Amino acid sequence: MDFINPDHTSWPANILKVHAIGIDTYLENVIYLRADCEVCKSEGFKALTRVVVSFREVEIVATLNVVYSELIHHNEAGLSQIAMKRLNVQNGDLVRIDHLDPVNSLGLVRSKMYGNELAEEAYQQIIHDIVKGRYSNIEVAAFITACSANNLTIPEITGLTKAMIFSGKRLNWNKDMVPDKHCVGGLPGNRTTPIVVSILAAAGLTIPKTSSKAITSPAGTADVISTFTNANLTLEELQYVVQKENGCMAWGGGVHLSPADDLLITVEKALDVDSEGQMIASVLSKKVAAGATHVVIDIPVGKTAKVRSAEEAEVIRQKMEAVAAAINLKLKVVLTDGSQPVGRGIGPALEALDVLAVLRNEENAPEDLRERAVMLAAEMLEISGTVGQGQGKVRASEILLSGEAYQKFLRICKAQGGFREPVVGKFTFEVLSTVFGKVLEIDNRKLARIAKLAGAPKAKGAGMLFLSPLGREIQVGDVLFTLYAEAEGELEYAKEFLSNLNEVLVIG
Amino acid sequence: MDFINPDHTSWPANILKVHAIGIDTYLENVIYLRADCEVCKSEGFKALTRVVVSFREVEIVATLNVVYSELIHHNEAGLSQIAMKRLNVQNGDLVRIDHLDPVNSLGLVRSKMYGNELAEEAYQQIIHDIVKGRYSNIEVAAFITACSANNLTIPEITGLTKAMIFSGKRLNWNKDMVPDKHCVGGLPGNRTTPIVVSILAAAGLTIPKTSSKAITSPAGTADVISTFTNANLTLEELQYVVQKENGCMAWGGGVHLSPADDLLITVEKALDVDSEGQMIASVLSKKVAAGATHVVIDIPVGKTAKVRSAEEAEVIRQKMEAVAAAINLKLKVVLTDGSQPVGRGIGPALEALDVLAVLRNEENAPEDLRERAVMLAAEMLEISGTVGQGQGKVRASEILLSGEAYQKFLRICKAQGGFREPVVGKFTFEVLSTVFGKVLEIDNRKLARIAKLAGAPKAKGAGMLFLSPLGREIQVGDVLFTLYAEAEGELEYAKEFLSNLNEVLVIG
Repeated sequence: MDFINPDHTSWPANILKVHAIGIDTYLENVIYLRADCEVCKSEGFKALTRVVVSFREVEIVATLNVVYSELIHHNEAGLSQIAMKRLNVQNGDLVRIDHLDPVNSLGLVRSKMYGNELAEEAYQQIIHDIVKGRYSNIEVAAFITACSANNLTIPEITGLTKAMIFSGKRLNWNKDMVPDKHCVGGLPGNRTTPIVVSILAAAGLTIPKTSSKAITSPAGTADVISTFTNANLTLEELQYVVQKENGCMAWGGGVHLSPADDLLITVEKALDVDSEGQMIASVLSKKVAAGATHVVIDIPVGKTAKVRSAEEAEVIRQKMEAVAAAINLKLKVVLTDGSQPVGRGIGPALEALDVLAVLRNEENAPEDLRERAVMLAAEMLEISGTVGQGQGKVRASEILLSGEAYQKFLRICKAQGGFREPVVGKFTFEVLSTVFGKVLEIDNRKLARIAKLAGAPKAKGAGMLFLSPLGREIQVGDVLFTLYAEAEGELEYAKEFLSNLNEVLVIG
Repeated sequence: MDFINPDHTSWPANILKVHAIGIDTYLENVIYLRADCEVCKSEGFKALTRVVVSFREVEIVATLNVVYSELIHHNEAGLSQIAMKRLNVQNGDLVRIDHLDPVNSLGLVRSKMYGNELAEEAYQQIIHDIVKGRYSNIEVAAFITACSANNLTIPEITGLTKAMIFSGKRLNWNKDMVPDKHCVGGLPGNRTTPIVVSILAAAGLTIPKTSSKAITSPAGTADVISTFTNANLTLEELQYVVQKENGCMAWGGGVHLSPADDLLITVEKALDVDSEGQMIASVLSKKVAAGATHVVIDIPVGKTAKVRSAEEAEVIRQKMEAVAAAINLKLKVVLTDGSQPVGRGIGPALEALDVLAVLRNEENAPEDLRERAVMLAAEMLEISGTVGQGQGKVRASEILLSGEAYQKFLRICKAQGGFREPVVGKFTFEVLSTVFGKVLEIDNRKLARIAKLAGAPKAKGAGMLFLSPLGREIQVGDVLFTLYAEAEGELEYAKEFLSNLNEVLVIG
């Protein structure tokens, strides 16, 4: 049913002129209609009413907000920025508004709420409707909650993974073996990707690496990459770079490989829940969509990392391996130390400097970052069969120490648009110790919080240089870490947090 | 932490002038800030960012929308209508914007997601934060989903019920016995409340009845009442009416007895889920908050009613009784026939006419409505000890047939602001049968849908007169039901639905 009444011969009431209202509602499509327009009257204005808005072949679902002022004129529909972008409309274009028919797959979500196991096809329907924008945020929240904790069986996670793969594009590299890596985040400074990509591409492997931007952390790999090269590649550009240099370092969001995941993650992060099943489906579907055949997963384990115990990591490992087997993906899970930050930098540019120091074999390059990158590259060389078992580390180190990796890194940057030196924030503040003793414990989450208050990841040069690894002997007056900011105000925000310094670092 | 930087001596960046933007976002508080204002820059603009907005002693949490146009001037904050109302501000007032600290009780919601049983105190914290507006809609959705299906134990439902009672006002009538009734909805036309209230108040019982408006149905009891008197009483008015006439028929939303429930129900309805535990807590907490001591619950059971089987009803009965016992509420649950609409009217004014016909003892008054009302009044006379066991029906019938109930009804209406005759819509359409046979099945939900398309409950005179009860022998050309609308366009919408008539009524 729609609003066009076939008996009316006048201009249809559900065709309205777009008014670019200039409101950014983040990822939520909002349509602003006058209270006295036909559509408002027909739909009624209940809780969270949603309507279908279409322009040419594109169709979105938008939440209705009713306007009682003169913001919107007669026969106009205001659209939020994301709605305009998704519809690809300009001010003055004519859009059509229709009633939203009931979304059938919500019945499946309700069934999941009741604890039932859903079939693979159910996940396909749900993900299809989510990608079409037919779910409101609260409906996505209900789906995420119903699938949270350990509510999904292995066949269900497999079904969800497949549904997410089918929901978007899938790259094909015409290779028997395409390696990829992923880190189940949560550890500041753990920026191995540019080093691993450089080593493997130099070794002749095809590694079309896509990474994410930070959502709740002070830096995502894509944020770090964008401080030294262009990470925002189109699919065509990505294919060109990989063809030319075997590898790339791109922002995954630019190539829309997993549109379902982008939507789910927004709500998951807002809820601050990490559903195990959805995390596994998210990671594995992205890898498969990017064309990967062999994947190494890094799970840092530590009290203040995302995964807090070896037991928890073991459960994830087993589930990941089972799902990977079901979708014909070769997978290796590596558990790593998650008790403290990796390297010294926290924040996009500061982490990039650590990466460059390792690639350039600088004397003061952070050893822990180098070791982790070599270890992961080694695992990938081994599972891909490029070298024999136990030969990975030697080969990866060789490529790194000889400068081959750095040369490859520079060539990839060049293909992506050129290399530039990362620039750190010009406002700095050294945090000095008022006590002496040994560094006994580090709260990774609070360090991340301080770096974010200083402006990271939005301010690319902001964050901190962390100088107090576990076990360091601290004297009164020693620099524990240095804050970096791009604006004085942001430096002040970060400084305000320092009154709780003993919750960040335990020195005793 | 807030945005005021103590080092700044200039005007604080987080004090902004209210701009009434005239956008109705329903129950969601939205604040519209310029992209270049300090608060936007400090908070960053991530998914679904929320900030605290305060004015004098009132504090709300609002979702941040960023404005890139000239809708909002420098040093201004646009507020959605509900946000202005809740803050009680006018255009030009100065409000203060602060960072929203993490909401601790969300950790309890996550624990519930993981299947843990929560303590009574946990529900108090969660409900407290929900009432304070600290949960976003998606967080409320997560809470509702985590508590859905049969995820709550009896002690948990009890804890939730108590938390909801404590979250708002609680009336005290200084009586040992205050009866109340509630129907677990879903049956069109089941409008016994005005009749039951009139009988019991005439019998000398104190019955301070509050009812709800329709959310997904074509009429709530409060919608029906508002067609013949003023239902929108303040707490003081309600107390005056009850003092004067023993009973009242008021809209519950006007007296804010259960602020938590109002917020939960909005999201529940949008999700179209009925969590058993939350339904029980919602119903019982409202009764206790209204001061009731003895409650009769009507559960219509039928294939297209809310409760679909006797087994399901039995489970609800047992749980309700257990929770009622735990909070010292005397409770009687009555299962009734839910296979077809009650009376003939569906829609506010049309249902009111049925109610009046029964109260006035009109010859053609719907017998089924009369019987149900008498039965419920009888149960309440009995559980309250006003009459002996088995004497209720006789006494209730007596009060109704003698006209005492109608006189009491008119006096209550007068105390509430006066009685007026309900007015039905002037656009009508008779739906004729094209087949003959017996009415074998009725889809209550589809009848409700048609009445809503005709404009109910917003258009008070809209809906239908349903003339085809189960078992009626239908001839070709007989009127099955008559549509009523207040606008021609709405009549057309309802008529469009008639092509699926065989899904609404099975005649054979």
